[in-house]
Amino acid sequence: MKLMRVGPPGEERPTVIDENGQIRDLSGHVPDFTGQGVSLAALETIRGIDLTTLPVLPEGARIGACLGAVPNFFCVGLNYAKHAAETGAKPPAEPILFSKAASALAGPNDAVTIPPGSEKSDWEVELGVVIGKPCWQVSEAEALDHVAGYCVVNDLSERAWQMEHGGQWIKGKSAPGYGPCGPWLVTADEVPDPQALGLSLDLNGERVQDSDTSDMIFGVAEIVSYMSRFMQLVPGDLIATGTPSGVGLGMKPPRFLRAGDVMELRVEKLGEQRQEVVAAE
Amino acid sequence: MKLMRVGPPGEERPTVIDENGQIRDLSGHVPDFTGQGVSLAALETIRGIDLTTLPVLPEGARIGACLGAVPNFFCVGLNYAKHAAETGAKPPAEPILFSKAASALAGPNDAVTIPPGSEKSDWEVELGVVIGKPCWQVSEAEALDHVAGYCVVNDLSERAWQMEHGGQWIKGKSAPGYGPCGPWLVTADEVPDPQALGLSLDLNGERVQDSDTSDMIFGVAEIVSYMSRFMQLVPGDLIATGTPSGVGLGMKPPRFLRAGDVMELRVEKLGEQRQEVVAAE
Repeated sequence: MKLMRVGPPGEERPTVIDENGQIRDLSGHVPDFTGQGVSLAALETIRGIDLTTLPVLPEGARIGACLGAVPNFFCVGLNYAKHAAETGAKPPAEPILFSKAASALAGPNDAVTIPPGSEKSDWEVELGVVIGKPCWQVSEAEALDHVAGYCVVNDLSERAWQMEHGGQWIKGKSAPGYGPCGPWLVTADEVPDPQALGLSLDLNGERVQDSDTSDMIFGVAEIVSYMSRFMQLVPGDLIATGTPSGVGLGMKPPRFLRAGDVMELRVEKLGEQRQEVVAAE
Repeated sequence: MKLMRVGPPGEERPTVIDENGQIRDLSGHVPDFTGQGVSLAALETIRGIDLTTLPVLPEGARIGACLGAVPNFFCVGLNYAKHAAETGAKPPAEPILFSKAASALAGPNDAVTIPPGSEKSDWEVELGVVIGKPCWQVSEAEALDHVAGYCVVNDLSERAWQMEHGGQWIKGKSAPGYGPCGPWLVTADEVPDPQALGLSLDLNGERVQDSDTSDMIFGVAEIVSYMSRFMQLVPGDLIATGTPSGVGLGMKPPRFLRAGDVMELRVEKLGEQRQEVVAAE
């Protein structure tokens, strides 16, 4: 299934795309796609609904983040070898984990506002993994049974805030709107192999990131199992699994986002995002 | 006001302590103390209720975390100079920010289970700050107007997971139950100066941490203003503001938690916690 949230910010409705590509309104039947709302049990409930009985919503409305809120917005760092190299880092021996503020979540096509004081904002196309079942100390073999689905994430990053203010990366990952997510939450049954997905990002029409999830250092099952050694993952948690090479920080000279820039992202099977960059007022 | 959540895990009711120290059940009047449920507006609603009309709950029931869930469980690192020194770090020039998994939240007196594979679990008594109003790029002078209240936090930390597995601290801060919080959310009007609170932690009856929030390197107003430069804080966000010296990591030789240990924490005006340490089954 392809699940999508449609409507103005803060008033999105949960919907599902039917076999004809029509947007069917689920809001009379299920809660928002948040926490338990995307548990494996909740997804089974949706599967049991006769979609032809649901109201059709018009095309063209704003698409919200495919998750209404997230218990945690986790990220994996430096998970593609060429990207680690372009940032000047060695490939990590174990997954690097950090998080974004949950308030960074945004719709896939919402404009990205460069915050006051920011000079080094950068793009990162990533495969997002959504957890569907509580997950504590599970093996790699069991890990994918805990995944509800997948989505496109742009892990937007302010490099000066991330790396020039001491301490941890969360500072540079968390500005409002710096976590576009969607358009769809694609359920795991439609993505039999999460390590065989092409992903790319075009900046102003030029392809700057172009890779495949087969190039990940740590695959999805390994990431989920590894994280669950240290913390309990819960339904609705979102894990952005790292970006391939081609970010602005790695260019010579570095190239950061400016008002008027347009980012177009895609992950195979998971849809496309398009964000225009605007200056803060 | 002193707000408290009472009941079995996952079924806690929101309550308020009345002037006679009785526990009054708010569950018919307000939602859980989560997100908007602790907004400044929600707190005003509670203030308007005649508490004598509310059912009195019996003493002795389990006390849950004073927040039902948190949009973000943020932490400030190395925010007391002597604690930075005992860990071998220099006092930071800017606040160090990181986060705990939201699933680490626990009641103030719940047993702490050492997870399988853990050998270096450590204690950290902290002042917790709860946000009551959206907060984006606010000045230090305005910052405290965005605070709903305060609580005791034990920022339990697995030092090997935090520092010996590469990357960021979140790995060592996020095990289930590693974020006891409460007993009360004490509203900000009862804490006119958050920089004048004694705080301590006793291990098996011996005082190992004993300090005052006046020793913080970065005070609450500075932390909230600083964080809001990088991310939008939202109602219900919890910020643990760092721990003073006296953690197990700083002892010579280091002393980590073992089954049977008992931690007793207090922050002036905010109540007490007591946790017994148990081994994983």
